[in-house]
Amino acid sequence: MLTKMNTCRKPLVLIQSSETAADLQKLCGTQLPEVAVFIKKSRGATLIVSEMESNRLRRSVNKNITVIYPENIGSGWKKGPADWIQRTVTEKELTVTPDFPLGLAEELKTSGYKLILSKKAPCPIREIKTGDEIEAVRQSQRAADAAMRKAIGQIASAAIGRDQKLRMGKSILTSEAVRATIGHTLLDHDCIAAETIVACGPASADPHERGEGPLLAGHPIVIDIFPRSGKTGYWGDITRTVCRGPAPAELKKQYNAVKAAQAAQLKAVKAGVWADTIHKIGADLMKSRGFKTETVNDSPQGFIHGTGHGVGLEIHEAPRISAANHQKLRAGHIITIEPGLYYPNIGGVRIEDTILVTRDGYKMLAPCEKKLEV
Amino acid sequence: MLTKMNTCRKPLVLIQSSETAADLQKLCGTQLPEVAVFIKKSRGATLIVSEMESNRLRRSVNKNITVIYPENIGSGWKKGPADWIQRTVTEKELTVTPDFPLGLAEELKTSGYKLILSKKAPCPIREIKTGDEIEAVRQSQRAADAAMRKAIGQIASAAIGRDQKLRMGKSILTSEAVRATIGHTLLDHDCIAAETIVACGPASADPHERGEGPLLAGHPIVIDIFPRSGKTGYWGDITRTVCRGPAPAELKKQYNAVKAAQAAQLKAVKAGVWADTIHKIGADLMKSRGFKTETVNDSPQGFIHGTGHGVGLEIHEAPRISAANHQKLRAGHIITIEPGLYYPNIGGVRIEDTILVTRDGYKMLAPCEKKLEV
Repeated sequence: MLTKMNTCRKPLVLIQSSETAADLQKLCGTQLPEVAVFIKKSRGATLIVSEMESNRLRRSVNKNITVIYPENIGSGWKKGPADWIQRTVTEKELTVTPDFPLGLAEELKTSGYKLILSKKAPCPIREIKTGDEIEAVRQSQRAADAAMRKAIGQIASAAIGRDQKLRMGKSILTSEAVRATIGHTLLDHDCIAAETIVACGPASADPHERGEGPLLAGHPIVIDIFPRSGKTGYWGDITRTVCRGPAPAELKKQYNAVKAAQAAQLKAVKAGVWADTIHKIGADLMKSRGFKTETVNDSPQGFIHGTGHGVGLEIHEAPRISAANHQKLRAGHIITIEPGLYYPNIGGVRIEDTILVTRDGYKMLAPCEKKLEV
Repeated sequence: MLTKMNTCRKPLVLIQSSETAADLQKLCGTQLPEVAVFIKKSRGATLIVSEMESNRLRRSVNKNITVIYPENIGSGWKKGPADWIQRTVTEKELTVTPDFPLGLAEELKTSGYKLILSKKAPCPIREIKTGDEIEAVRQSQRAADAAMRKAIGQIASAAIGRDQKLRMGKSILTSEAVRATIGHTLLDHDCIAAETIVACGPASADPHERGEGPLLAGHPIVIDIFPRSGKTGYWGDITRTVCRGPAPAELKKQYNAVKAAQAAQLKAVKAGVWADTIHKIGADLMKSRGFKTETVNDSPQGFIHGTGHGVGLEIHEAPRISAANHQKLRAGHIITIEPGLYYPNIGGVRIEDTILVTRDGYKMLAPCEKKLEV
């Protein structure tokens, strides 16, 4: 069966790109090679790939999708997508998505096609996860959780040098070393993560700084792990913040505010609640505890990102949980709840879980302890 | 210093996408977040990212690039690239690349812009590697080589069961287990590989089949490792084909043809030689030994792919070494030479090295033994 997609009277043409890759994987039921042209007609669909990829894809794509290669339609690989589309579609009006490449659009227009820009996602059903998809995200989240435990265990077991640097035996414990521990643990769960964050002290004040060099006692260490399963292609996402040894009073206060904000947001989550309401609950709570969000010397600080995002075949997908998204949560959404506070003098604190939205609340996909001092 | 790019009188606008990501990394000197708009003017360039990413990028981008976020220009994140571009560029004519998203192009046209489609790559210099880039690819290639040795060592040390399945102690040696060995070894070299191939027997006849399940003695096992460095973003690429235990005569003949083809191709490589000539040398040699390339029952077999591709910030980049690319090799190109033969009854054989093209020949970036029977 073809995955349900937006109906459109005109043939819908999708070209593989970073944005459409996940939609195409869902529509086709398998990961596609770099170059792939997908044409949905009123009945069934055609997928055009290279001859070399065709056999493998014929075995793995969803039924009702016909896999062909350019030579099947009297064309050739070098002739490119415009020629392939012309030989496959008789209609002269095509539906395309906003990320359709302009160069190809111009070629098709020159050949007499009219392109209709559809603003609807080609595969809106992707937002609401099926049972199999929930299980796939849960597996990746369990991998992330296992890696997080190993990473925190490594930090907790480190000795503290006189220079405050963490030590494992004679060597200094670095961001790189903890990232390696995380990577090996994920691999044992058939997952990989390209951009794991292990950021300590000032570096942690920048939410997407990966971190490098020695880890220090008495400073926040933000650990953000987002692995993708090699088997399913689905992601998981978790963040914890820890401090080796006693934490300064200001850091404790900051941590408790983020933890309380996340708890309040989680408590509010259920089908029918607005995404922006969830964000506001966290923002208001942290503000009420005296944590300002502002730009100082052209440098943003405070709660400087949204609360979360959908997780599935993309690490960041709909629905966004932010001030800008007035959208109702629905049962079957899988989202992160990850409030954070970032100040250059103290560092960053972020706590993140990936959850399944249900009719009455939520399900934590892989529970993992939240504790600052280790 | 800004990396040299194609000059254009009109401002050049690049939007992050799978195709432009590598160009943008080279132009900016750092990896960019998911959403990034790059505007090159006659003097310098502007990079628009989210407020949260701005500090990190200000520290890491090449000089002459001004990093701003939408609020700096009286806009907001939600207003999107069309609004940001309008507030940044006074000229009404913009140069864009073929992969520019159609939806954004339509928005800009509605706002009175004229878009000029440039077919030149925005960063053609990326094809010729600098000393630092050669070193970066060499490091990734060394990681690939180390992983290959471990993988082949594991296969060579396996016992052969009565059922021909390879065994490590009491457990059966699978594609998955060898892939895990490869993954852990790459991680120890700060590299990851998402789609390593360890394909045995009939599965190996499909060049991009990843492989699964038990490995068998007496059959070809194609191992293709293409890791990316987490630190530099540069790739490496290597393939070997091995057979545990004695190989059937037909497989030996097939292996020797591929090995001889690769040797002949490597011998011909030097600056000034045509890419399609290199391909033809391998194709002709294998044909002369009786290995036909043809489509049987709508299933391609023989030498069914190109000889190679450039390797750098993308795993597949210019120049392509194929029948379709009549382009001269130049000193500083880094390319793969990877002839292969694939037949459903025997399986596949592919041998691949990544080399640096020089004025007089080539340099192997990481030498690794070629031997069928292990």
